[in-house]
Amino acid sequence: MSSELHIYNTHKREKEKFEPLNAPHVGLYVCGPTVYSEPHIGNVRTFSSFDVIYRYLVHLGYKVRYVRNITDAGHLTNAAGEGVNRMESAAKLESLEPMEVVQKYTTNFHDIMNLFNAKPPSIEPTATGHIIEQIEMIEKLIENGFAYEVEGSVYFDVTSYNKKYPYGELSGRKIEDLVAGYRDLDGQDEKRNTIDFALWKKASPEHIMQWRSPWGMGFPGWHLECSVMSTKYLGQSFDIHGGGMDLKFPHHECEIAQNKGTYNEGGARYWMHTNMLNFNGQKMSKSLGNAILPMEFVTGTHELLDKGYHPSVIRLLFLQTHYSSELDINIKGLQDAEKAWKKLFESKGHLASLVGSAKTPTETSGKISALCKGCTDNMNDDFNSAKTLANLFELSGIINSLKGGQTTLDQVQVSDIELLTTTFNNFLLDIFGLQEPQQASSNDKLDDVMNVIISLRKQARDNKDWATSDKIRDELQAAGIQIKDGKDGEVSFSVD
Amino acid sequence: MSSELHIYNTHKREKEKFEPLNAPHVGLYVCGPTVYSEPHIGNVRTFSSFDVIYRYLVHLGYKVRYVRNITDAGHLTNAAGEGVNRMESAAKLESLEPMEVVQKYTTNFHDIMNLFNAKPPSIEPTATGHIIEQIEMIEKLIENGFAYEVEGSVYFDVTSYNKKYPYGELSGRKIEDLVAGYRDLDGQDEKRNTIDFALWKKASPEHIMQWRSPWGMGFPGWHLECSVMSTKYLGQSFDIHGGGMDLKFPHHECEIAQNKGTYNEGGARYWMHTNMLNFNGQKMSKSLGNAILPMEFVTGTHELLDKGYHPSVIRLLFLQTHYSSELDINIKGLQDAEKAWKKLFESKGHLASLVGSAKTPTETSGKISALCKGCTDNMNDDFNSAKTLANLFELSGIINSLKGGQTTLDQVQVSDIELLTTTFNNFLLDIFGLQEPQQASSNDKLDDVMNVIISLRKQARDNKDWATSDKIRDELQAAGIQIKDGKDGEVSFSVD
Repeated sequence: MSSELHIYNTHKREKEKFEPLNAPHVGLYVCGPTVYSEPHIGNVRTFSSFDVIYRYLVHLGYKVRYVRNITDAGHLTNAAGEGVNRMESAAKLESLEPMEVVQKYTTNFHDIMNLFNAKPPSIEPTATGHIIEQIEMIEKLIENGFAYEVEGSVYFDVTSYNKKYPYGELSGRKIEDLVAGYRDLDGQDEKRNTIDFALWKKASPEHIMQWRSPWGMGFPGWHLECSVMSTKYLGQSFDIHGGGMDLKFPHHECEIAQNKGTYNEGGARYWMHTNMLNFNGQKMSKSLGNAILPMEFVTGTHELLDKGYHPSVIRLLFLQTHYSSELDINIKGLQDAEKAWKKLFESKGHLASLVGSAKTPTETSGKISALCKGCTDNMNDDFNSAKTLANLFELSGIINSLKGGQTTLDQVQVSDIELLTTTFNNFLLDIFGLQEPQQASSNDKLDDVMNVIISLRKQARDNKDWATSDKIRDELQAAGIQIKDGKDGEVSFSVD
Repeated sequence: MSSELHIYNTHKREKEKFEPLNAPHVGLYVCGPTVYSEPHIGNVRTFSSFDVIYRYLVHLGYKVRYVRNITDAGHLTNAAGEGVNRMESAAKLESLEPMEVVQKYTTNFHDIMNLFNAKPPSIEPTATGHIIEQIEMIEKLIENGFAYEVEGSVYFDVTSYNKKYPYGELSGRKIEDLVAGYRDLDGQDEKRNTIDFALWKKASPEHIMQWRSPWGMGFPGWHLECSVMSTKYLGQSFDIHGGGMDLKFPHHECEIAQNKGTYNEGGARYWMHTNMLNFNGQKMSKSLGNAILPMEFVTGTHELLDKGYHPSVIRLLFLQTHYSSELDINIKGLQDAEKAWKKLFESKGHLASLVGSAKTPTETSGKISALCKGCTDNMNDDFNSAKTLANLFELSGIINSLKGGQTTLDQVQVSDIELLTTTFNNFLLDIFGLQEPQQASSNDKLDDVMNVIISLRKQARDNKDWATSDKIRDELQAAGIQIKDGKDGEVSFSVD
């Protein structure tokens, strides 16, 4: 009997058995990137974590609709203070066009996620693509008494909402503390209460992204798009909502309020939050000079790195820590993850040549079977990839011992090797999304074959068969390969 | 004195000097893909052609804003006849979600354009992302008397428009002939005239993509999005509009009418149309079984292909024909393009080792200089890549002759080699976007070295030196390489 998937629901603050609303379908919403700059490696961790969660749900047989939005409606203003009127003029091409910035960083984001071998979501909706739907939700909130208009802007009325539904449940905040904690900020005094948040903002002329609405020209508040897009594509009540821990408050808290205020349902039933990431024990920030970009981890072009690391090494490093725990990246950790990555795939590579000869289950069979089952049990325990990896390492030890002969092949059955093969394929490739280190490449083969030739040449020279020795030299030269005789009799070669 | 860029303007039916409205800025709009299926290789030709045009404009020093839309608002209906009301239910995840289809084929389209080394456009706006703007244009058209509402749909009034502006200029059609040529189609009788086209369509319940509008729930007509997005991002009058020839009528004709009817300006000043593509002299179509997908050309997995071709080979094949001419693809053409591709890069590779010793310009210098200048002159002549390639082949001949010694290095100056290097880099890499063939790969080296070994083994066998012959076999086997003796004395090898 296999274990069942349990998820730590950050809303309920407990691990719950996962029961989808409409199995085998699962709706998964993850807050995506804001495409006005390059993603942080912490974003890559979050999206890699949800990629593994998505892959595991698919592995379990669920039909997952995975929605991850693109926040492209932002608050860009024209630095020159030029308003939208400028946009009508012949000089439009000279003006900053936010969608050009959006395009650049959307492409960059996709390139990075491809590099890190994350699968694209089922739907990647944009905020600018859902302005009408956002206006409609605001209208419903006003109608339901949870929002009010002031001077062309619309705010969510937290106090009024809190009379019907508790506000602050997700993040564990009390409305009284929140009110006391807020200072009156300049220009926000038009709100009835400092904790109210914007659903629609009146656009000043220098806001270059603005749309018409029942309240005049403006743009949606940032929290709104996720409520609108998650319910549009997954339903008013859906399965899982994920995001970085930093989004819990106010973003996700506001999402829940918007959803309940509109539909009397809070959207997601399971909330999942990924934890933060440090480098050498410090928060990464531009001012500390340790804000290494995702691409820099791969190319190694940052002074704090010793070299570049394969994206799969970084993915493996992420997976070695549970998604909900803080993770510290450092050189030692990267180097260890690289060794671990190579070791796991080396063991996987050995499997094809192992033929078990035991006719009945042995003690080793029992170990293998328990460790393989453990991989699934650990993932079923709130996607515990760290513990699953520990099992895979133990299995790797068994494989290496079989390969090295310390454990003889009569200690395993054919079916044990089959189970190992399935487990390694499933977890390394399909679920963890790791890529193979370069296969023993044709360069290695070239080395091997050159060793054969060099030994033939040595034999010819030992026999004073100069004709053969010259022939070898000339033919290799014609192929662009130079043989060099070292001082100590060591022979090397170089390729043009 | 360098030549100046001229473009064949399909609207004026003549070649015109290119004078951007607002140099050094250039606005370029190209009709992008409909993302409900995989692109056709003909689409890849069109987008590759405009990629080269874009790259060349950038090469000339223009700051190009290149807008290529994604048509994602379509006319998908739910096969089960289920309407939008279904979307509110708990079973939402079971329903077809058009945006899921859109996501799949948008990702697929980007993958293919990346494979073919096309640069992403500056902005890639979507139809669903501009519903409000489309509604606004319809309102202006109604206000200006060029559109009318019937039963929740809005149509463009071609007859009324034609009284003020000529309709049909781009495609060379007369409104009288068009009216006579149309049959009354079912369900379109609500239009005042058969040639009127839809700006907004009332959604029937089975239309699963629909938005609210002043005319009720519906969706925009297909021609509208390009008028809206080109003018939003490039201005009411802009430089170049491109697309496949099949879009000239009705799509581009309708675009011009919408633009003039709204702004009294027709949008693009230069219209460019790419021509169609055949395979073995036949139009490609599913019914003929010759509709080879772009990826299949690369992988070679289609019965009509002899093997896969590198995307750069296919790009080169495209470039060998002027974009405005019909192009026939066939195996011979692909094979020739592959040879041409290798030859050009081989010559380019020789340049680094050539050192001219002439102190003053020679006859060869004169030839090189004229041919290099010709590359630019040909591109300036309506982007004539075919003629530019012919020049590059002639230059390739000169380079090979210098490399082979048929032309001595005292016939060229250092500056001639520099000019050749710049020209090959600019045209092959930057402008034509071709990728280098794999450098003489280690696989080729392995083949070369194996030939040396095989000949040593033959020598040993001829000498009845079985010890050496066996040593070779065993050592290669240990390296995972098997030698096979064929019936005709031919020796081959295989790598594990």
